Amino acid sequence: MTGPRLTPLAQSLPASVPFVGPETQERARGRPFRARLGANESLFGPSPKAIAAMQQAAAEAWKYGDAQNHDLRAVLAADLGVPPETIMVGEGIDGLLGYLVRLLVAPGDAVVTSEGAYPTFNYHVAGFGGVLHKVPFAGDHEDPEALIAKAAETGAKIVYLSNPDNPMGTWHDAGRVQAMIDAVPPGTLLMLDEAYIEFAPEGTAPPLDPADPRVIRMRTFSKAQGLAGARVGYAIGAAPLIEAFHKIRNHFGMCRVSQAGALAAWGDKEWLAHVQGEVARGRQEIARIARANGLTPLPSATNFVTIDCGGDGALARRVLEELTARDVFVRMPGVAPLDRCVRVSVGDAQALAVLAEELPAALAAARG
Amino acid sequence: MTGPRLTPLAQSLPASVPFVGPETQERARGRPFRARLGANESLFGPSPKAIAAMQQAAAEAWKYGDAQNHDLRAVLAADLGVPPETIMVGEGIDGLLGYLVRLLVAPGDAVVTSEGAYPTFNYHVAGFGGVLHKVPFAGDHEDPEALIAKAAETGAKIVYLSNPDNPMGTWHDAGRVQAMIDAVPPGTLLMLDEAYIEFAPEGTAPPLDPADPRVIRMRTFSKAQGLAGARVGYAIGAAPLIEAFHKIRNHFGMCRVSQAGALAAWGDKEWLAHVQGEVARGRQEIARIARANGLTPLPSATNFVTIDCGGDGALARRVLEELTARDVFVRMPGVAPLDRCVRVSVGDAQALAVLAEELPAALAAARG
Repeated sequence: MTGPRLTPLAQSLPASVPFVGPETQERARGRPFRARLGANESLFGPSPKAIAAMQQAAAEAWKYGDAQNHDLRAVLAADLGVPPETIMVGEGIDGLLGYLVRLLVAPGDAVVTSEGAYPTFNYHVAGFGGVLHKVPFAGDHEDPEALIAKAAETGAKIVYLSNPDNPMGTWHDAGRVQAMIDAVPPGTLLMLDEAYIEFAPEGTAPPLDPADPRVIRMRTFSKAQGLAGARVGYAIGAAPLIEAFHKIRNHFGMCRVSQAGALAAWGDKEWLAHVQGEVARGRQEIARIARANGLTPLPSATNFVTIDCGGDGALARRVLEELTARDVFVRMPGVAPLDRCVRVSVGDAQALAVLAEELPAALAAARG
Repeated sequence: MTGPRLTPLAQSLPASVPFVGPETQERARGRPFRARLGANESLFGPSPKAIAAMQQAAAEAWKYGDAQNHDLRAVLAADLGVPPETIMVGEGIDGLLGYLVRLLVAPGDAVVTSEGAYPTFNYHVAGFGGVLHKVPFAGDHEDPEALIAKAAETGAKIVYLSNPDNPMGTWHDAGRVQAMIDAVPPGTLLMLDEAYIEFAPEGTAPPLDPADPRVIRMRTFSKAQGLAGARVGYAIGAAPLIEAFHKIRNHFGMCRVSQAGALAAWGDKEWLAHVQGEVARGRQEIARIARANGLTPLPSATNFVTIDCGGDGALARRVLEELTARDVFVRMPGVAPLDRCVRVSVGDAQALAVLAEELPAALAAARG
């Protein structure tokens, strides 16, 4: 008996995972985390209206979801001031990134991103045989000009920028990003990941212009709306590109319960303001805890704070391991020089109290 | 400004949809269906325990789902008597089919299926540049021997069989399917779609043998468990193939609420038995309605009944249109000679009463 024959590309890929999930770690450790601060989830939870909508929709889960995501696209379009045909709803930004890369990247095609930027984007690019070209962060920021230069040099199909950026939490203002859009080389698409945009200062996002074919923007219900587990993201782009998703997407891939939750979450602006306030407070508290331990918090426009541990990657790795051993789930950037930091999601008071309690001993052990 | 450059394959694909959803039809019609009998959903709903589990999980939707689907895989493995590493949980069979085709099918690779079989499988094959070879149904059954012969002739990467089969509702016994497995040509994988297996007579599914690399089986929570809108399917296959899914899958693609719902649904064998009983009764009722109108119901091992309208595809198409105009959502096979039929999902008493009420006039209009 012989087995199936994988494609040469599939054969060449490792069985990798961009992130190890907290549940996976908990099973390996044999006990749960006390503070879940590693995945930039919203510990403040979804809007009570979203919870209620999902609870009501649960009984209707026997029906496939609406393949057109009509109602959600309609309210997004109305509120964002763009036509519905310039919005694609999908299975989280992760799912949409997979579709986008599949549409644009054939084996050997160039793609540009930053050293240390979102690993799941890189995973999709590798998964479709693209060739990644990376430019370093400039300071603790992604470097728009270097990204554009590399895209021009390599003839890239896609150039990726997150703004605000993950894993550092920094951001560029709208003018700088618009200048990057205006500099996108012919035939390149700027993939502008705005997963954290609701936590950024006014003036961080350039105006939406879905007539512009040079950029696609992606946003999510996973962060500010607290629906990471529901898997709802959306892309805003020029209609021909949005239309192309229909060529390959899993038309009935959206959970009906999640559609209902996202719709209700979008309508609850009070909850959004509440979460934004909690996140702003939580960032200050994480910064305070960091400073109290002699560490340097980076400015953040996201729902996490990246903390410079003041040494090299090996030190930060030990800090992370010691925090993990003390039941605090955090993550860290993957490459130097960003990996001198650990990344801590904003938690509620209880989770941040655990952080404050455990960080001194974790630091001492890491340095010892 | 120039736009992004799609891959040649993506450029060549139409913006198609394998099925038009009922909500899309309702928006076009301007009014809702009275009987939702077209998508083989379970009108009996999910288990009350699954609904309760989803309602409870809704408040936890701020957490990403467990990337390993550990708990669900553990109970599936224990109950099915296979190792957990031979089970892959994914975003419905549709999602898993996309991953499978991506793993195995490069542009130009041959794939074999039946004329009129599951369109979403064909959509994925086309989407990755595969070349579909189709063999006709034999009578109203898929033809295992012809499928195997065509796979051998074309050197197919995948040969697809659904058992019980969609859209006709017929089935082969386990011996016939096992003989097909044993005849799979070297280097071909049998994709055995068992979405409807819970509705089939004992002796329809061959024993699970995850040591056998020649076949992958896919099952779903969308049908008997009534969770179509939750998007949970699973594949059972040899460990090396199951492991390969990790190379390309969306690791955090599963909804946390759906994971909870599926786990609870799997544990509620009483509800499964209840649904099986209702479906058996409903099949008889649809058959009765068909016969009372001079039509011929096909035997069914699924949660739908395919009804021979006694004419050609044009007649059945008119019957479908007239039923639609009377607010009854049904579907029909896409190709001759199967398209002499319409396909009616088993509904509850209320939905089938609507069918009984509207079918005579729909038939008269279709014939007139």
